[in-house]
Amino acid sequence: MTLDEVRTLSRGVLSGAGLSADHAAAVAETLVAGERDGCGSHGVYRLLVATRSIATGRVSKDAVPVVSEPAQALVRVDGGGGFAQLAFERGKPLLVEKARKFGIAALALNNVVHFAALWPEVEALTEQGLVALAFTPSHAWVAPAGGTEPVFGTNPIAFGWPRPGREPFVFDFATSAVARGEIELHRRAGKPVPDDWGYDADGNPTTDAAAVLSGAMRTFGGHKGSALAAMVELIAGPLIGDMTSKESMAADDGAGGSPLGGELVLAIDPAGFLGAGVAEHLTRAEAMFEAIETQGARLPGSRRYAARRRSLVEGVRVPASLHADLMALAQGGKA
Amino acid sequence: MTLDEVRTLSRGVLSGAGLSADHAAAVAETLVAGERDGCGSHGVYRLLVATRSIATGRVSKDAVPVVSEPAQALVRVDGGGGFAQLAFERGKPLLVEKARKFGIAALALNNVVHFAALWPEVEALTEQGLVALAFTPSHAWVAPAGGTEPVFGTNPIAFGWPRPGREPFVFDFATSAVARGEIELHRRAGKPVPDDWGYDADGNPTTDAAAVLSGAMRTFGGHKGSALAAMVELIAGPLIGDMTSKESMAADDGAGGSPLGGELVLAIDPAGFLGAGVAEHLTRAEAMFEAIETQGARLPGSRRYAARRRSLVEGVRVPASLHADLMALAQGGKA
Repeated sequence: MTLDEVRTLSRGVLSGAGLSADHAAAVAETLVAGERDGCGSHGVYRLLVATRSIATGRVSKDAVPVVSEPAQALVRVDGGGGFAQLAFERGKPLLVEKARKFGIAALALNNVVHFAALWPEVEALTEQGLVALAFTPSHAWVAPAGGTEPVFGTNPIAFGWPRPGREPFVFDFATSAVARGEIELHRRAGKPVPDDWGYDADGNPTTDAAAVLSGAMRTFGGHKGSALAAMVELIAGPLIGDMTSKESMAADDGAGGSPLGGELVLAIDPAGFLGAGVAEHLTRAEAMFEAIETQGARLPGSRRYAARRRSLVEGVRVPASLHADLMALAQGGKA
Repeated sequence: MTLDEVRTLSRGVLSGAGLSADHAAAVAETLVAGERDGCGSHGVYRLLVATRSIATGRVSKDAVPVVSEPAQALVRVDGGGGFAQLAFERGKPLLVEKARKFGIAALALNNVVHFAALWPEVEALTEQGLVALAFTPSHAWVAPAGGTEPVFGTNPIAFGWPRPGREPFVFDFATSAVARGEIELHRRAGKPVPDDWGYDADGNPTTDAAAVLSGAMRTFGGHKGSALAAMVELIAGPLIGDMTSKESMAADDGAGGSPLGGELVLAIDPAGFLGAGVAEHLTRAEAMFEAIETQGARLPGSRRYAARRRSLVEGVRVPASLHADLMALAQGGKA
């Protein structure tokens, strides 16, 4: 499929599920980006996740995001219970303006449903020449280090750094030991998971994927990853007046919908501290990337960018069965 | 020793080494805090590190930090090659003022020498009711994931969250697998280190502590920790016009001094997003801490706070040989 075909298919499925045109367009761009960058699990496959979330009745299909300015360098977008993508899109121009004006600014998305990666959002800010960080809680699936009961979400952290004349340096990772989808894939394949991914509901380490899914996942990196997961809960939850992962899980009440809550995005303008020295200092940053790559280590995002270059020329491959399911959804049917 | 005696001893040693009174006082407070909180490696033991750094001739003993405002929500303190503590102290009031005024603000310390923990700085901001993050590169001692040659410093990340009526939630950890001092302790004790702490100079995993010290340490948490280490390099290096860990190491040129470079501190005022709802939402955050502690997991910082409560009543114990060395230094002699 060409990326345009992916876009048309995605919009069709989302519109068929009842999303308003602007929500369908905003969500579709995220899925096109995932497919384009070779992230199968964040491409059109996520249409199944999105339509399942919509089917729970807990996603506002036509919410109109409301942008406000709670403080001079802060932007808030109340997403009205809709998907996060449109809320981010509506808040981004003011975040960019404020970051340039004040040197640093923050954007809170409130009351949004999240089912996608954060990297498209930080990458969009690097395209404006800004350095960006993004955080969001999810559902309480992850135990703190030293415990076995879920408190945190998978709580991703994303970071973007503009690299003049080439793709930005971007990473986006869950603070859980692995992505939840990874455990789900093991469960479907009937394969055991490593015994350090999580605990069963009784708090015992287990290799049973289903038991981890109904028990608790671990954080990555021991107590350090656990500390970061707690930080994400706090700064993208209570700090912006939105739900923690436990509260999001309680609000879902077993419906199986995507996490509902907030997201915090920070943007820093390099020109703020550097003034006319931006080019000089960004060039020094390139020396660090070079020191990483010349020893054969990979930069985060490099696989995505390689896939992107291929996809833009060759298009992408979508498995026939998934394609058929999606075409049926696009016709207004059910997968 | 009482904490006042620790303070007097620290100031005496630092003044004896030639530091101006304001620098000696600012550095001493960090060491008192470390000793008080039971962090032996960040207490008066660090006087040996500080005086060694001073002896290299690469620390300005009487630098006058210069505060400026590169943008409306940004503060810069040029530390003039002195220790970081006084520079932070001089920049803090304006950072606090700007965070309250704009909702978020950032402080860059430039051209400072770093040999201490970051937690005293984020804790100082939580005392003002702010949420804080701090980052600093160090010397290039740590290899990126997938490589074996040093690029990053131990690049700590510190975070602070105010908890009304009690000690703040504060963490501060190196993005390296372990603290460098930990490897140094193994070397002194002639003990092997685990084979996943680092590499020798030829890039082979090794259990020889000395070989890791002259080779490369690993990051914590695999590629995720490595991504965070890269982020710290970028945002507390080129973004603020200051050195990367490789540049700091090159500038040291084998003298064995503490890292020279920058530090980035972010401060967010909860009242920015929450307005009159601060108390309500900080209370929701307490539910998360409770969910962690009631299952027997420890919050970061809890050991420090327990030690603090003891120290404030009972004072602290300093090993006799260390005390004798420090007394000699305080008389202007050499250890």
